[in-house]
Amino acid sequence: MPNNSRMRDNAGKEKEKPIGIFDSGIGGLTVLHAIGQLLPKEELVYLGDTARVPYGTKSAETVIRYSMENSRFLLSKGVKAIVVACNSASATSILELRKRFPDIPFIGVIEAGVEEAMQVTKSGNVGVIGTSATIESGRYKKLLLEKGAKSVVGSACPLFVPLAEEGWIDNSIAEDTAKIYLKPFGGGVVDTLILGCTHYPLLQKTIAKVCGDRVSLVNSAEAVAKKLKNLLESENLLNEKGNGRRKYFVTDSPIRAEKVGSRFLGENIAPSLELAELD
Amino acid sequence: MPNNSRMRDNAGKEKEKPIGIFDSGIGGLTVLHAIGQLLPKEELVYLGDTARVPYGTKSAETVIRYSMENSRFLLSKGVKAIVVACNSASATSILELRKRFPDIPFIGVIEAGVEEAMQVTKSGNVGVIGTSATIESGRYKKLLLEKGAKSVVGSACPLFVPLAEEGWIDNSIAEDTAKIYLKPFGGGVVDTLILGCTHYPLLQKTIAKVCGDRVSLVNSAEAVAKKLKNLLESENLLNEKGNGRRKYFVTDSPIRAEKVGSRFLGENIAPSLELAELD
Repeated sequence: MPNNSRMRDNAGKEKEKPIGIFDSGIGGLTVLHAIGQLLPKEELVYLGDTARVPYGTKSAETVIRYSMENSRFLLSKGVKAIVVACNSASATSILELRKRFPDIPFIGVIEAGVEEAMQVTKSGNVGVIGTSATIESGRYKKLLLEKGAKSVVGSACPLFVPLAEEGWIDNSIAEDTAKIYLKPFGGGVVDTLILGCTHYPLLQKTIAKVCGDRVSLVNSAEAVAKKLKNLLESENLLNEKGNGRRKYFVTDSPIRAEKVGSRFLGENIAPSLELAELD
Repeated sequence: MPNNSRMRDNAGKEKEKPIGIFDSGIGGLTVLHAIGQLLPKEELVYLGDTARVPYGTKSAETVIRYSMENSRFLLSKGVKAIVVACNSASATSILELRKRFPDIPFIGVIEAGVEEAMQVTKSGNVGVIGTSATIESGRYKKLLLEKGAKSVVGSACPLFVPLAEEGWIDNSIAEDTAKIYLKPFGGGVVDTLILGCTHYPLLQKTIAKVCGDRVSLVNSAEAVAKKLKNLLESENLLNEKGNGRRKYFVTDSPIRAEKVGSRFLGENIAPSLELAELD
C-alpha cells in the first residue's frame, strides 16, 4: 500500500501520473478497455509482454521474474498504480510485487474477479476456468474460500486461448471443447463461473450456451476497473482533468501486435504503439 | 561450414565433442530420439527454451535473438555441431546462425524435411503444415521450389500444438480441427505432406486418416538424423567410441519439463535434466 501522507503532499502531481497495466500479451487490452470506459480522463500505459507470451505454461518463478521486469518498466514511465491484467501473473506474482514495490498499489484481476463473484453467487458454490498455471496456483480457490465461498471448482482450459486467437469462437470445435472443459460445472454444481483469463470473454457466448441459464458468468475486466476507481478515490489519486492519453508497449514486434490489438480494442492502436526494451 | 583442415588436425578430440540440439520447448525431443537411434555413440546436449516457448507466435527478429542465445549456450558446452530442432527457429534463423558462427555446422529440420519430401513425391506437388511463423516465413516453399518441386501449398495449424500437449490426439475435436486445417491438401492437390512442427507426429494418425492414402506424410526428425550422420562422416567427426551420454537443459523449471519430456522420450530424463542460465 502507498504511503498516504506522502501521496497527499504531492496530490496534484501524483494525480496526473499515468496508470500502468501489464499483461503477458494483448489479451489484457480487454482490461484496458474497461478501465478507459470507467476512467476516461486517466492516462494509461499498457505493456504487453508479447515476446514471452504465454505465461500460463511457465513456472511460478519465471512468471514472477517477468512480472518484476514488467513492473520496473512501467515504473520507469512514472505510473501511480499498476494493474496486473494477466491472470497467470496475478496468481503467481502479486504478493511478491507488493513486497518488492511497497510504495505502489497493485490491482490484480483475480482479486477483482473474486470480489465480483462473491457478490453474484447465491449458493456460494463458485467455479473458475483459466490457464493451467492459474488453476494450479490455487490462488482463486484460496481467495474465494477466504471471502466465504462454500465450495470452489476449478478447470484448466488450455485450448480456449488458441481458439480465441484463431477466431473459432462459436463453431462446433469451440462448442465441443467447451463441453469437455465445462463438464465439472454442470448439474447445479456451481451458480457462478469466473472467466479467469483475459481471452475467455471472446468465447463468452459459447461458454454461456454450454453452461446454460443456471450459471452466471463473471468477466473480471470490469470488476478490475471498479476496484481501481475505488482505490484511486480513497488514495486521492483520481485524475479528473487528464486527456485520457494511451500509450501501448510490446516486447515483440509491434507489427504483429497492431493487428490483433486493434481488433481487441475496436480502434487502431498503431500510432501509440512502441517496442519496449526490458532490463 | 567448418574449417576442414583444422578439424582433421584435431580429429580425435573433435570427434569426442557432443552434438548440440535446441528447440523452443520439449517437442524437439522427438528429434533427439531419432538422432540417438541412428547415432547411439554420440554424446547429446539438448536445450529446450521452455521459458520462452512457443517461438511460432513470435517475430523473426525475436526468434533470431533467441536462437543466437541458445547456440551460444550450446557452444559453451563444447559442441561440434548444432541441430536446430525447432521449425520456427530453422525457418527464421538458420542462415543468420551460419553467418554468426561460421566454424560450426548447423543442421535444420526444414532442410532435412524438404530433402526427404523431394525423394518421396512423385507428382512434385508438396504440402507443408506448421506454425504461423514457419508457414509465413515462406522458407519451406522457397527451399522446395529450389529443389525442384512443381507446386507447394502451406497451411498454418495453430491448434495442433495445444491439442498434442493436451493429449487430444485422436478424438473428434482433433479430427474436426484436422479437417479444417488439411482442406487445402484434399482432392489430389499434393501427394506428399511435410509435418513441419516437432509436435505434429503425435497427431500423425489423425492427420493420415483425414488426408487418406493418396498423401505420404514426411516426419523430419528421422531425416535430420540421417543428414547429421552424413555430415559428421564427411567432416570426419563421427564418434564411434562414445558412451551416448545425454544431458538435458531447459530455461524454465525442470519439474514441468520432466513430466512431458519423459513422456515424449518414453524414459525418465530427470537425472540428466538441469536449468540453463542463458546470457
